[in-house]
Amino acid sequence: MFFPRKMAPALLSFCQWHCRHRRHLGAVSKLSVREALASVEGSPNSIKLQGWVRSVRSQKDILFLHVNDGSSLESLQVVAEPNLKTSALTFGSSVEVIGKLVKSLHKKQNVELNASDIKVIGGCDSYSNGYIHIHTPIITSNDCEGAGELFQVQATNWDHGQSDKSGFFNVPAYLTVSGQLHLEVMSGGFTRVYSFGPTFRAENSQSRRHLAEFYMVEAEISFTDSLDDIMQVIENLFKSTTTALLSQCPEEINFFSKYVSVGQKDRLEQFLKKKFVTMTYTEAIEVLKDAREIFHYKPEWGCDLQTEHERYLVKHCGNVPLFVINYPYDLKPFYARDNEDGPQHTAAAVDLLVPGIGELFGGSLREERFDVLLSRLERLGLTDTYQWYLDIRKFGSVPHGGFGMGFERYLQCILGIDNIKDVSPFPRFPYSCLL
Amino acid sequence: MFFPRKMAPALLSFCQWHCRHRRHLGAVSKLSVREALASVEGSPNSIKLQGWVRSVRSQKDILFLHVNDGSSLESLQVVAEPNLKTSALTFGSSVEVIGKLVKSLHKKQNVELNASDIKVIGGCDSYSNGYIHIHTPIITSNDCEGAGELFQVQATNWDHGQSDKSGFFNVPAYLTVSGQLHLEVMSGGFTRVYSFGPTFRAENSQSRRHLAEFYMVEAEISFTDSLDDIMQVIENLFKSTTTALLSQCPEEINFFSKYVSVGQKDRLEQFLKKKFVTMTYTEAIEVLKDAREIFHYKPEWGCDLQTEHERYLVKHCGNVPLFVINYPYDLKPFYARDNEDGPQHTAAAVDLLVPGIGELFGGSLREERFDVLLSRLERLGLTDTYQWYLDIRKFGSVPHGGFGMGFERYLQCILGIDNIKDVSPFPRFPYSCLL
Repeated sequence: MFFPRKMAPALLSFCQWHCRHRRHLGAVSKLSVREALASVEGSPNSIKLQGWVRSVRSQKDILFLHVNDGSSLESLQVVAEPNLKTSALTFGSSVEVIGKLVKSLHKKQNVELNASDIKVIGGCDSYSNGYIHIHTPIITSNDCEGAGELFQVQATNWDHGQSDKSGFFNVPAYLTVSGQLHLEVMSGGFTRVYSFGPTFRAENSQSRRHLAEFYMVEAEISFTDSLDDIMQVIENLFKSTTTALLSQCPEEINFFSKYVSVGQKDRLEQFLKKKFVTMTYTEAIEVLKDAREIFHYKPEWGCDLQTEHERYLVKHCGNVPLFVINYPYDLKPFYARDNEDGPQHTAAAVDLLVPGIGELFGGSLREERFDVLLSRLERLGLTDTYQWYLDIRKFGSVPHGGFGMGFERYLQCILGIDNIKDVSPFPRFPYSCLL
Repeated sequence: MFFPRKMAPALLSFCQWHCRHRRHLGAVSKLSVREALASVEGSPNSIKLQGWVRSVRSQKDILFLHVNDGSSLESLQVVAEPNLKTSALTFGSSVEVIGKLVKSLHKKQNVELNASDIKVIGGCDSYSNGYIHIHTPIITSNDCEGAGELFQVQATNWDHGQSDKSGFFNVPAYLTVSGQLHLEVMSGGFTRVYSFGPTFRAENSQSRRHLAEFYMVEAEISFTDSLDDIMQVIENLFKSTTTALLSQCPEEINFFSKYVSVGQKDRLEQFLKKKFVTMTYTEAIEVLKDAREIFHYKPEWGCDLQTEHERYLVKHCGNVPLFVINYPYDLKPFYARDNEDGPQHTAAAVDLLVPGIGELFGGSLREERFDVLLSRLERLGLTDTYQWYLDIRKFGSVPHGGFGMGFERYLQCILGIDNIKDVSPFPRFPYSCLL
């Protein structure tokens, strides 16, 4: 048998290391994840493992955890009775597990930890706590992105004898393209806010990633001046939601993994195990320029990343979710915070690219400095339109940032569905508004 | 002291009744709510109470229940340590409580039950279980209510050389006035569905109960042919949500009860204790005709109930929520189920009127019979428009019904806020679309 022979040196090395580092804590010795993973046959005695939960899957008869403590890139699988699952045992929580290392039936690992006790040391309620749900308006007199692909809204039977003919709302009114600006208003009082609602684009696109009506999860976080903070919330949101889906909807995930996108579940578990990769936009352009692949759109600093570029970058990074940060200042909307660098001038903005989909999240620090925001709006000729937005930088302004996630794209990503029209019961797109 | 003297005969009567009906069940005797309420000073021994939970309020240091067993219109207050609260202890669940009757500090009752043990006999998860959340579309080519107060949606920069000039969707497209018809599609597969999303009316109303953009909770329930079923879901939804709010947001409720609408909390607790009243539309018209009050709109069978009528009816019934059922057939939309009665022809429709607000819920059984629906649509000249809706009566049609609740009106009702514009951060109404 090839497998055990190859593992023998590792086992020897593990045993020596183990003997040197074995620490007696009460009746059981403590093991690191690296030590545990190096074992082939398991151990007759109980051991103690301490680390952070990378995934929780709770099934009817069994509970699976993956625990990582930084000693290895890999996590150790923990198997337990389902009654050891408590509400505090979530993605990101720190735990102490006592149990026996046993030989695993799974081909990908030698051993797993058969837990007799799981203690949550530090809980990690990564998203719900402290976030207030806000209903941002659907009809708005603003155009958040400054782009022109809007739906206008007009009352059908509006004839009430007004002389100005300006319609129901007295001003031109549109369907929202994002709740961000309204969330920013509310974050200046509630600190952390989010919305989950429909947004609209009148784009003439029949692509497999665009709908005219789609849902976004958007969040704004006050008192942060670090893009890393925003990225940590994004990564936690993606991982905790996906972990919850894997644990609460195993039948659906298995169905899609078997019949729709073969191996999808394994791919998701890889996403959960690994830390997301980060590269700057400038590094991304260099990677693309160095690529052997011939692109339809030539990669150039200052130009938008195209679908083909996104696909290449994600593959280049090992097919895990990839943060691209610090985009060219002129590519990003007026509210993105100026990094004040040069000569390649960037803004503190981030996109999360995921395999098979491309952009799933987009976020940024927002320009909280009145003077900097004012001069940018002046250059764009938008000072009158966004007077109210400038005002919230005048009265108790705080450094803040946020992000949005396309909900249907997230469903595509989780279920492995190629066309976005297939994750919506009543999809709306050019030339189609059925029912 | 007047109080104890007046209660003496009741106490004597209670003692006699109690002695006759005392049943020994293990170590503690069983008491009905009527027996318990008739006590003045409490009891030295533990007693057992069995009944249904009418309200749960869980505070930091104390748990309050109201339990009713049908022996009295009133409920008995149960006081317990907060650790006796389990997730199964919800509005509507049946419980067995062991404890001692003690004198209450509250003026409204003589005694309360100081619980040492609370056992949930039958859980009552009245709403979340089994209901699937559906995102019904915002942009639609339908007009659910058959009324004309719609917002039309058009792409602003749509010029892609189409000869037909029919715009982005190729058909006229509107903002939804209700997700009901789409929910009906989904209920023909998921059995119980609900939506919680924005809906729109281009009504020229500046009233304190109307917005151009508002949220509705809507639900559809398959396999029911009883309006009572729908009303039970409505009453449970109202009571369980309100109970949850009272228990989870005591500070906010107390604030509004103190500064915005004095006594609001007591009124809500009255709503929770009492069974909602039901009367038919025909009875309601008789009550209005018999009223001494002079109405601006004369009440007549076949006419809509006006705000003044709703107010009178609710007051007439003791200022508790009031179901009005079986409305004139011709007043209700095409989808309401024909009661096939006469000569006053009605449909199986219901409105819930609440004090201070008027109509909060509206619901009906839906016409599931193909032939009956077809002939009504034919009379209305709507067969072509609703061909797809007729189709869902052809293939696996089931008796079903549902309802919608205006979310902002619910907030008004709970917080005692007079004007609907004050419960929305960004209210939209005629001549106003700020931000």
